[in-house]
Amino acid sequence: MRSWVEAANAPDCEFPLNNLPYGSFRSESGEPHCGVAIGDMILDVTRMERDGLIQMEDEEEIFFYGDWTEFMTLGPAAWAAFRARVTALLDEDAPDAEKLVGYMVPMAGTEMLMPFTVAEYTDFYAGKHHASNVGTMFRGPENALPANWLSVPIGYNGRASSVVVSGTDVRRPWGQLKAPDADLPVFAPCKRFDIELEMGAIVGTSSEGPVTVAEADAMIFGYVLMNDWSARDIQAWEYQPLGPFQSKATATSISPWIVPKAALEPFRCSTPERERPLLDYLEEPGPMLYDIALEVGLAPDGKAETVISRTNYNVMYYSAAQQLAHHTTSGCPMNTGDMLGSGTISGPEKGQRGALLEMSWGGKEPVTLDTGETRSFVEDGDTLTLRGHAQGDGYRVGFGACTGKVLPALEDPYAR
Amino acid sequence: MRSWVEAANAPDCEFPLNNLPYGSFRSESGEPHCGVAIGDMILDVTRMERDGLIQMEDEEEIFFYGDWTEFMTLGPAAWAAFRARVTALLDEDAPDAEKLVGYMVPMAGTEMLMPFTVAEYTDFYAGKHHASNVGTMFRGPENALPANWLSVPIGYNGRASSVVVSGTDVRRPWGQLKAPDADLPVFAPCKRFDIELEMGAIVGTSSEGPVTVAEADAMIFGYVLMNDWSARDIQAWEYQPLGPFQSKATATSISPWIVPKAALEPFRCSTPERERPLLDYLEEPGPMLYDIALEVGLAPDGKAETVISRTNYNVMYYSAAQQLAHHTTSGCPMNTGDMLGSGTISGPEKGQRGALLEMSWGGKEPVTLDTGETRSFVEDGDTLTLRGHAQGDGYRVGFGACTGKVLPALEDPYAR
Repeated sequence: MRSWVEAANAPDCEFPLNNLPYGSFRSESGEPHCGVAIGDMILDVTRMERDGLIQMEDEEEIFFYGDWTEFMTLGPAAWAAFRARVTALLDEDAPDAEKLVGYMVPMAGTEMLMPFTVAEYTDFYAGKHHASNVGTMFRGPENALPANWLSVPIGYNGRASSVVVSGTDVRRPWGQLKAPDADLPVFAPCKRFDIELEMGAIVGTSSEGPVTVAEADAMIFGYVLMNDWSARDIQAWEYQPLGPFQSKATATSISPWIVPKAALEPFRCSTPERERPLLDYLEEPGPMLYDIALEVGLAPDGKAETVISRTNYNVMYYSAAQQLAHHTTSGCPMNTGDMLGSGTISGPEKGQRGALLEMSWGGKEPVTLDTGETRSFVEDGDTLTLRGHAQGDGYRVGFGACTGKVLPALEDPYAR
Repeated sequence: MRSWVEAANAPDCEFPLNNLPYGSFRSESGEPHCGVAIGDMILDVTRMERDGLIQMEDEEEIFFYGDWTEFMTLGPAAWAAFRARVTALLDEDAPDAEKLVGYMVPMAGTEMLMPFTVAEYTDFYAGKHHASNVGTMFRGPENALPANWLSVPIGYNGRASSVVVSGTDVRRPWGQLKAPDADLPVFAPCKRFDIELEMGAIVGTSSEGPVTVAEADAMIFGYVLMNDWSARDIQAWEYQPLGPFQSKATATSISPWIVPKAALEPFRCSTPERERPLLDYLEEPGPMLYDIALEVGLAPDGKAETVISRTNYNVMYYSAAQQLAHHTTSGCPMNTGDMLGSGTISGPEKGQRGALLEMSWGGKEPVTLDTGETRSFVEDGDTLTLRGHAQGDGYRVGFGACTGKVLPALEDPYAR
């Protein structure tokens, strides 16, 4: 599919006409506006709605606040209608392309904002290589994969208030740390600050009772890249018996663009063969995972970036639809804006791991960067960047980079 | 303090002039209105605001939606001013009591609604007797209290969407259950459905970085009774390694009335002596716990209630202010409407336990009701009721009952 926005037709452009992801950007007026990415431009949907070029059903000002949450509540038929309308407008054969030129904002230099309001945030643990690696380090090889792991899409509730958009600096946290040979913990800055390469699935429509995997898939609005910053030393001391808490509450960064599920349809693939049969409620009616190539870049302060991992979302054991279905089994109501993290995405090889904890095997085998420096965990001043795209025939569907720079811990967190 | 609302002056009335808790009720028009409880009446604050009898600063229609969240954002000075104004209006010497008579709604027969919008919900684990009892049952007596427990106010994020107001029926959930002697789990209705007697602290004002215990205490708006419904069999199978998830997501019931922190001031008491010194950031500048007598009643369907537990909030090891301070250590932003569960409140004696899991010691010692029936866990048709009050000199400050009736599990959770 070709657009009259020329940059969109380049084979390595992340935002071709096939993609049309949703973001929020600061407009000339300083207000957040909803935008759709096309090539190197952003289509200003908030201004188009204001000027009557786009109207969603009988609703008014769906895009007024520069947030896609209200749009999500309209449901799949409205999502499809909007996508068809924008696709037609941006198609190379669109009859009145010139009417749209005034609504195009160059991406370069634009500040991206949170594209939606996170209602609640759940983080899963669906990467088998990741779970095995971390389990081996935390509990030994004989207890690597928990007994329930092959049956339950293990997840825990995270903290929605800590989700930030790409580009937001992330400050190294303080917390309780206990050295293995110490009797008592200290309160100090985290020494083992880490990343987790994940995909985030965004729930578009709400549910009340349990939903099937097929229904869950229909509820999903789109996907983002996600970096779930993790304080490993805080985690190791706090996580028994009720799970990770402050170790995961500093920040979770997401890509600025939500890629619609519709744009990812050609890239569906299946979860793997099961060594243990799944319970019926988790059976998938079709392929629910996606073939999305992912990478992690690490750039020390002021220096060139090294790509420290390359993997693919297609290695996951449970899909987001399975996770969402499981999430509702208890009767838990799900709402527009809920976000589900996939769990850390690690492939089978060392160069395919999604967390420094795994890449450096708990610090024992530091990663060597192209600059010659080594990393066991992230250091102050490092910029971490996640990238991802699905590769089509002559085009790719991308998410935009998900970046975050690590700031040093506060000297005194209680100084005012 | 005496009110011209006569019922408020009875020594056993839960809603004297000293209390003035905040609730939401369905008004004659069918709309949710904000109300303040006094004696056997509700003062209709939404109508008073509409008619100009109450105005918060320059703000308009703070109470329009029948939800106290907007009011909470105004902060402690506004909370105090409002409380002083309502206290003066309801005082027995109030000069124009007759002007208020038209704003009084009888409590009897009124439907109570959620008094605020839960932003995020965190559940803690601060009852030492509870943690020891559960730890003994789940992990054996030698691992009863986790190694971190005396240092860390252990908590996990719960699911805000599952919080309901007292009076809401609670349906027994389905979930993954694995019998100890089975190889594989089944998907079936929960067989060990339980309650947890807790207090909920409601965060009134937001924070960005770490806050001290004193600052945390100032952020707290008020307290509710809380019943954190728990599926013990789902929990036992799912909780390793990332903590409780679906076992805690069916429902959490809260009392209809939020008791303002100001009303509880006379009842402050201290957390216990520490067998292990606390880290500085958890030190309390004064008494942060409250002396609140609590009880749990269980009524089988159509039968009389038995009080199955009597305990007190004053047995807790960590206060809500300590928990909130700990919650912010990582830099986690806290928001208006966040709710913090205390953890199950169990005293040292068997008759003082806050969960059936403990009362029946995992089902081995069923509780005998006054009807002659026994209970290891809650059964379909049971109504569970939490009550609580602080006892003053000739008056008491109560929360209203926190009730919920257990409905049978759906026959087929996916039937439409």
